[in-house]
Amino acid sequence: MSEGFTPADPDYARRVRENFARQTFMATLGARLASVRPGEVVIELAPRPELAQQHGYVHAGAVASVVDSACGYAASTLMPADSEVLSVEFKLNLLAPAAGDLLVARGRVVRAGRTLTVCQGEVVARTGAGERAVAVMQATMMRVAGSR
Amino acid sequence: MSEGFTPADPDYARRVRENFARQTFMATLGARLASVRPGEVVIELAPRPELAQQHGYVHAGAVASVVDSACGYAASTLMPADSEVLSVEFKLNLLAPAAGDLLVARGRVVRAGRTLTVCQGEVVARTGAGERAVAVMQATMMRVAGSR
Amino acid sequence: MSEGFTPADPDYARRVRENFARQTFMATLGARLASVRPGEVVIELAPRPELAQQHGYVHAGAVASVVDSACGYAASTLMPADSEVLSVEFKLNLLAPAAGDLLVARGRVVRAGRTLTVCQGEVVARTGAGERAVAVMQATMMRVAGSR
Amino acid sequence: MSEGFTPADPDYARRVRENFARQTFMATLGARLASVRPGEVVIELAPRPELAQQHGYVHAGAVASVVDSACGYAASTLMPADSEVLSVEFKLNLLAPAAGDLLVARGRVVRAGRTLTVCQGEVVARTGAGERAVAVMQATMMRVAGSR
Repeated sequence: MSEGFTPADPDYARRVRENFARQTFMATLGARLASVRPGEVVIELAPRPELAQQHGYVHAGAVASVVDSACGYAASTLMPADSEVLSVEFKLNLLAPAAGDLLVARGRVVRAGRTLTVCQGEVVARTGAGERAVAVMQATMMRVAGSR
Repeated sequence: MSEGFTPADPDYARRVRENFARQTFMATLGARLASVRPGEVVIELAPRPELAQQHGYVHAGAVASVVDSACGYAASTLMPADSEVLSVEFKLNLLAPAAGDLLVARGRVVRAGRTLTVCQGEVVARTGAGERAVAVMQATMMRVAGSR
Repeated sequence: MSEGFTPADPDYARRVRENFARQTFMATLGARLASVRPGEVVIELAPRPELAQQHGYVHAGAVASVVDSACGYAASTLMPADSEVLSVEFKLNLLAPAAGDLLVARGRVVRAGRTLTVCQGEVVARTGAGERAVAVMQATMMRVAGSR
Repeated sequence: MSEGFTPADPDYARRVRENFARQTFMATLGARLASVRPGEVVIELAPRPELAQQHGYVHAGAVASVVDSACGYAASTLMPADSEVLSVEFKLNLLAPAAGDLLVARGRVVRAGRTLTVCQGEVVARTGAGERAVAVMQATMMRVAGSR
């Protein structure tokens, strides 16, 4: 459902990348902004011991963090240049243990409104043997006219 | 709704504390297990720059992480001794910026079933001026018979 | 958390009752507006065969319908006189079969914002033997300036 | 993500259809089971005055009802013959007013587990002018060994 979006701000990708660089929590996690396209953003996270829950898998909260950010930035790509994005709410279903060589979190805009944008996200784990779905998210993002 | 629970495992608090100590992500965040009671667990998190989103507030994903853990451990307090808990899903509504001197995440069991336990969580921010609600969560936790 | 709200519109209760009367789906279900207070609304629904799922219990969708409406009206009680309310999203956890003499759905405002209001809802089943929790909801409602 | 499912019960479609016929609430709504395939079920609902919220659109609860059922039956198609399905929880985002000639609710399995199945649903409105997305759902369904 994320096809054919035309960004209102031609400079959306730079804006998203600069904003990502200010999210120090993404650096704390070790997350990397992998792709920024109109209505779709991908963030990658390599599992490491500092992110583990009790079984050694990546904690559900770390998974939520990257896919929430991917959804928020996906929403941001379609907003005017002076916009800030806030997460109103998100819901995450965990499908399988978050393990593997790399977690890839993809956020996609389902519907972009003037104030609210609804996104869906998914996280897959890449291993030598292929990809496995780890989590799916449904989220609501809110545009706030930026103060910067 | 979390009154009057009787834990099946009299040693529930030690079990929860040992499990929390194995969640290295909680140490990475700087979270602290503040209280463990039957059907209710409190985790505290002091905001610091490493946890910030783009405006300097604590990232929604870090907020989700501590209240998800609080809910999971609240569920765990009522489970048999050999139980492990997995997050099936959670939904978080953000109410206000996560800032202040201390974030206090409280998870409470709403209904404890044999396999699934439903919890509600809340996060409040403590400041010199008092407390402010930051987020509310509704979550489903699953018991897995432990392998340890 | 729903204590101490002061409605912006002193005529909020009449406004809610008139609006409820326009929701023909509530009449189709057989739902009744039982209580309207600032930040809290109660809707009652008597189980009957027309509302059943495959086991004869009230369908989860009918449960969602009344508690969604209770949450929406709870939000409405705190809004200005010309407001309309739309459900942005809701999340429902089912705790026990929806059966009994009467289902009581209570919606409460957790945080009232200028545009968005976050609510929590619960549904209990009343029987001769007492009350049992049937479902809990967490919902986001949006104010739209009314066109009437 | 719902490609390539092989049903454990070759008679899954008859089982789903018989179960749907026992959901009297679907008849009360006027909903129709349109399609049953492995991991995907479609339910159609024609808007009519008895289903309306205050603006004359179909009530969000009626929308939730049909897409919850579509998700539940999608999960059911992949379960053994003696299975019953219960909704553990669902989360619905409303995207646009539920109006038009026909609402089409599609439920799809994202991950089928032994006990829990995660589904995504969507509701589109068909009009003379085409289709419009009305709602998206993310849901958890539980298998219960049947008593029949």
